[in-house]
Amino acid sequence: MPIPDTDDTIVAQATPPGAGALAIVRLSGPRAFAAAAALLGPAAAAPRHRQARLLAVRDGDRLVDRAVAVFHRGPASYTGEDTVEICCHGSPFVVRTILNLAVRAGARPAGPGEFTLRAFLNGKLDLAQAEAVGALIEAGSAAAHRAAITQVEGGVSSEVRAIKADLVELLAELEARLDDSYGEVPALELKGFSGRAAAARARALRLASGFEAGRGIKEGLRVVITGAPNSGKSSLLNALLGYDRALVSGEAGTTRDTLEAELEIDGFKVLFTDTAGLNARPSSALEREGIRRAAAALRRADAVILVRDGSIKGSPSDRRALAEAGAAGAARVIRALNKADLPARRRPGPGELKVSARTGEGLGRLRALLVADQRKVFRDGSQAVVTSARHFAALSEAAGQLAALPAVLRGPRPRAELAAEHLRAALSALASLLGETAPEEVLAEVFSSFCVGK
Amino acid sequence: MPIPDTDDTIVAQATPPGAGALAIVRLSGPRAFAAAAALLGPAAAAPRHRQARLLAVRDGDRLVDRAVAVFHRGPASYTGEDTVEICCHGSPFVVRTILNLAVRAGARPAGPGEFTLRAFLNGKLDLAQAEAVGALIEAGSAAAHRAAITQVEGGVSSEVRAIKADLVELLAELEARLDDSYGEVPALELKGFSGRAAAARARALRLASGFEAGRGIKEGLRVVITGAPNSGKSSLLNALLGYDRALVSGEAGTTRDTLEAELEIDGFKVLFTDTAGLNARPSSALEREGIRRAAAALRRADAVILVRDGSIKGSPSDRRALAEAGAAGAARVIRALNKADLPARRRPGPGELKVSARTGEGLGRLRALLVADQRKVFRDGSQAVVTSARHFAALSEAAGQLAALPAVLRGPRPRAELAAEHLRAALSALASLLGETAPEEVLAEVFSSFCVGK
Repeated sequence: MPIPDTDDTIVAQATPPGAGALAIVRLSGPRAFAAAAALLGPAAAAPRHRQARLLAVRDGDRLVDRAVAVFHRGPASYTGEDTVEICCHGSPFVVRTILNLAVRAGARPAGPGEFTLRAFLNGKLDLAQAEAVGALIEAGSAAAHRAAITQVEGGVSSEVRAIKADLVELLAELEARLDDSYGEVPALELKGFSGRAAAARARALRLASGFEAGRGIKEGLRVVITGAPNSGKSSLLNALLGYDRALVSGEAGTTRDTLEAELEIDGFKVLFTDTAGLNARPSSALEREGIRRAAAALRRADAVILVRDGSIKGSPSDRRALAEAGAAGAARVIRALNKADLPARRRPGPGELKVSARTGEGLGRLRALLVADQRKVFRDGSQAVVTSARHFAALSEAAGQLAALPAVLRGPRPRAELAAEHLRAALSALASLLGETAPEEVLAEVFSSFCVGK
Repeated sequence: MPIPDTDDTIVAQATPPGAGALAIVRLSGPRAFAAAAALLGPAAAAPRHRQARLLAVRDGDRLVDRAVAVFHRGPASYTGEDTVEICCHGSPFVVRTILNLAVRAGARPAGPGEFTLRAFLNGKLDLAQAEAVGALIEAGSAAAHRAAITQVEGGVSSEVRAIKADLVELLAELEARLDDSYGEVPALELKGFSGRAAAARARALRLASGFEAGRGIKEGLRVVITGAPNSGKSSLLNALLGYDRALVSGEAGTTRDTLEAELEIDGFKVLFTDTAGLNARPSSALEREGIRRAAAALRRADAVILVRDGSIKGSPSDRRALAEAGAAGAARVIRALNKADLPARRRPGPGELKVSARTGEGLGRLRALLVADQRKVFRDGSQAVVTSARHFAALSEAAGQLAALPAVLRGPRPRAELAAEHLRAALSALASLLGETAPEEVLAEVFSSFCVGK
């Protein structure tokens, strides 16, 4: 997919579809002011920057609406181009008419993300910042919002730029020696050089390491509640949510299918999945299907709450649940000994939390444990969190290239040329993260996920 | 329902809900600038009128978003009060956060239509104009939009004001005589007086007479297609729509239930209902139910297309359809002799159109006939169309009061005091239309139908 023409003037509705008090139609490009003048009156020959004017929208001699138009002169606009935001009545008919008038005046309907693409191409945002604009709009929790706004503001980018700057310095030192046919430059101080490369690698890895937590922050943390039948999983879900989402009864096997519910804990979005109990001896095809679905949910989990009933002795089903939870590969398994309000028949294992869905005992600690990794990411300094798989891949690639350096530089004949290759590859990965070298396919993919109008 | 407090500063999202590139949060009231300053930085102590500024939205020391805020100084704003429009990223989370920050800074969430209510209370719009703002947002066709924007611009109001001015003059002449205890004022020239009252009444009636067409313009014209079974009603519907909406077959009774489809003809919205054929001898309970539904649709129709099959002789079902179409009370019945492409077995009746769903013959004239009344409303001068039942009632009441004048003024002892009463009642009806004397209940009802944010 080629990048759309940037010489055109583009137009789109910037606000969500549907009826409302107000809507915004946005024009951007070299002919934005001229197109606006064609449909807005009285015409402003040379509107002042960031001037808001109450104007009439006209279709020939017919009044369409009265609208407040704000004129932004490039490059001091979102896209970097001349931009007009027409704030009209939120009538789908009026919006459609204005879009048609703008097209008749020479503008072209914008494609998805095309305004932000132009902002990127005009150097208003780097690619990592531009991607975060989409994440900012979709942010559904305080934490997702915080990660997105930090990235829009350049939090991730500035960290990546700092790593790049270190690598550029290292590369320059290597290249000075490679070009030094007269032997004028002193030999490389290998130990210091390797140490600095290792530090840059650690920095890239540290940024990349936030990705698992960051993905949970952006998309919501997937927590699966599992355990033996009748261990009180659904009651625990209801207690965590604070309302009766799941049907509960004293009978084992009440929950047959997986069941989902969403909760915000300390600003982090958590997506709970309650599952059928993992019966070691399922008695019906229906129960086996429920267990199959529970196992599938476990494989997609970021965290697992493994529930045991503390008021009875252990069972084969408890052991099955422990085995399946461990095998699922979730980043963390939190063990909960439930029904702490009843007389205890077993003791909590190491790290196992005593909880009671009935009295609420231990639920605060359980909630805190669930988002501990996410909170840690925000506590660690810069707040910049990698939430994009593309960025994680680029940082991992850079770290991988830097990991090859020690072997290349070791021994009596350090291969400086090869080391320089690795440094260049690492730099290239980081440059692509920022969009400095991103090919058209990457840009097309990044911006096609945006909504039209952004 | 009392009118909400107007000393408060109110806040609401003005754009439709959901995610988009941009959204607008609007503040209005005496503390609008102060509340905006509390959440936007760097603070603008005294923002200039209609100035757009790129500012940071802050929650304490945390950045929420960067937004363009437009400051409107009252009374030169929509509401007549100080108003701030904050144009932020179209993220539901960001919008929610800004609303919360505004409330924390002293604003109150606005009720439905409260911005427009303030515009009305501050004299920026009269009540008829204010009501049309809602119609403008909801306008789904070019004609509905045209009627609404004309009313927002004061088209209806200025006509009502002109009638009022005439009545005020007449009332003054009457009152001068009533107050004239010394016999100084010459006697009323009764013929001229009555003529001017009749002219004012005719003007009110003419404005009111557009209501039926106006309601069709605003809500869409309800057109029911009826006729004997197998007369080609569904084929005619498909031909009018230009696509196969209805299932058709050569078999009588293919259409069993009513079926709706929407079409815009010359900018007017038309809502077609295809119905089961009116069989004079229905053969099943299912067919009888279909006919019952067809009859119910006919009773709600603004216009009826009565279809006959021109390729066969008349039947009892044709006569039943004619009788039911006539009895339904629709404003107009358009008769169509269908299947004009086949050899004719009967001639069109007076005013009956020859049409062919297959070849398209006569369909252009049929479409034009459907919206003829609506077009006439727009051709007649001012374009002001009454689309509101409240306005129709007020105009009818005024005309009714004026109709009583001739009897009161006739004969040897004209009852001037009673005539003045009728004039005052007519004036009061027109004043309530404009909102000059509308009680709180009327205002509450008018504005409660608005969306929040308008």
